[in-house]
Amino acid sequence: MTPDEIDDIEQRHRDKMQRIKAAVDARIAAATEDTGVLLVLTGPGKGKSSSGFGMVARTLGHGMKAGVVQFIKGATPTGEEQFFRRFPDEVEYHVCGEGFTWNTQNRARDIERAQAGWEQARALLRRDDVGLVLLDELNIVLAHGYLDTATVLADVMARPLMQHVVITGRGAPAELVELAHTVSDIKVTKHAFKQGIRAQRGLEF
Amino acid sequence: MTPDEIDDIEQRHRDKMQRIKAAVDARIAAATEDTGVLLVLTGPGKGKSSSGFGMVARTLGHGMKAGVVQFIKGATPTGEEQFFRRFPDEVEYHVCGEGFTWNTQNRARDIERAQAGWEQARALLRRDDVGLVLLDELNIVLAHGYLDTATVLADVMARPLMQHVVITGRGAPAELVELAHTVSDIKVTKHAFKQGIRAQRGLEF
Repeated sequence: MTPDEIDDIEQRHRDKMQRIKAAVDARIAAATEDTGVLLVLTGPGKGKSSSGFGMVARTLGHGMKAGVVQFIKGATPTGEEQFFRRFPDEVEYHVCGEGFTWNTQNRARDIERAQAGWEQARALLRRDDVGLVLLDELNIVLAHGYLDTATVLADVMARPLMQHVVITGRGAPAELVELAHTVSDIKVTKHAFKQGIRAQRGLEF
Repeated sequence: MTPDEIDDIEQRHRDKMQRIKAAVDARIAAATEDTGVLLVLTGPGKGKSSSGFGMVARTLGHGMKAGVVQFIKGATPTGEEQFFRRFPDEVEYHVCGEGFTWNTQNRARDIERAQAGWEQARALLRRDDVGLVLLDELNIVLAHGYLDTATVLADVMARPLMQHVVITGRGAPAELVELAHTVSDIKVTKHAFKQGIRAQRGLEF
């Protein structure tokens, strides 16, 4: 390419980027509200819980506190639990599950654990000093009917104005999707597990 | 309900869960390979980068080291950067972007930064002691043609056998999807931004 041709490419790039910037700036100007966001991460794909834990990390990076309640999981120690338990002054961490429902095979016990978990969650949802609450795999518990969805949603909606809540798990109930500000539905394009690769430390747990 | 009716519910629950457990156990038995997984998080929905950062946290929780290269982002300090920079012995953290492409408006400079970022990434992809490498927003850089996709993929595929690589960003190139073990496509069911709520600390950055 000649110098003139390169200049032309550069100029067209700047023009295009200026048009995009104007559109983005207009949207940002229209989005002015600060509020505690209710975020739902659902769908069958990989990345729901890990995304919630990334937001816990971000929250701590901004000098805010976070709360975590892990429903369902809990039979084996996870990397996320081992890591975030390093910061007891910054993260209040509860594990209320005893493993997946098909492993426990005891419905009454699962319900009892879910209800104990919800007591921990409710306490976090009343704290002004907790910037973000992660309710990991709560959707699974709701789908099984182990907690009353209306009670859960009432507690979530009564939280402090600026508190963010992140709820993960497949099969988010319609009432929760309705109330949420942001809902991501994670689809599986492909998954290592189906290629004979088992769950890997660091990635899956 | 009578005690007999409750017993019946409990028994049916156990039977159902035992059938699920048998199916899950069979799948787990078939998935026996341990390998460094190539994971791609793409699509327009919220949760791609945060998921990658959650996996960095998991990696550290298992006593492994992680590497991060953030492409594109970098104009303003993020919670994730402030948080993970606390652990310089565990996370090697690079920020190579100067903001979104529509803000920089300088294609030559963007290319230069992307290439400098790739040098950092390549060094991480050669290290046996790094369990997971997060290449945040790399898909954007590839979509813009700022890096050569074939070169990038050759470096990724030449990494140590047990090293995990997580690549985020919209518009993952087809060649990358083809090579990846796991690909999640994150769809937007709804987003707070469209409701006039601006990006929130802890959740979005």
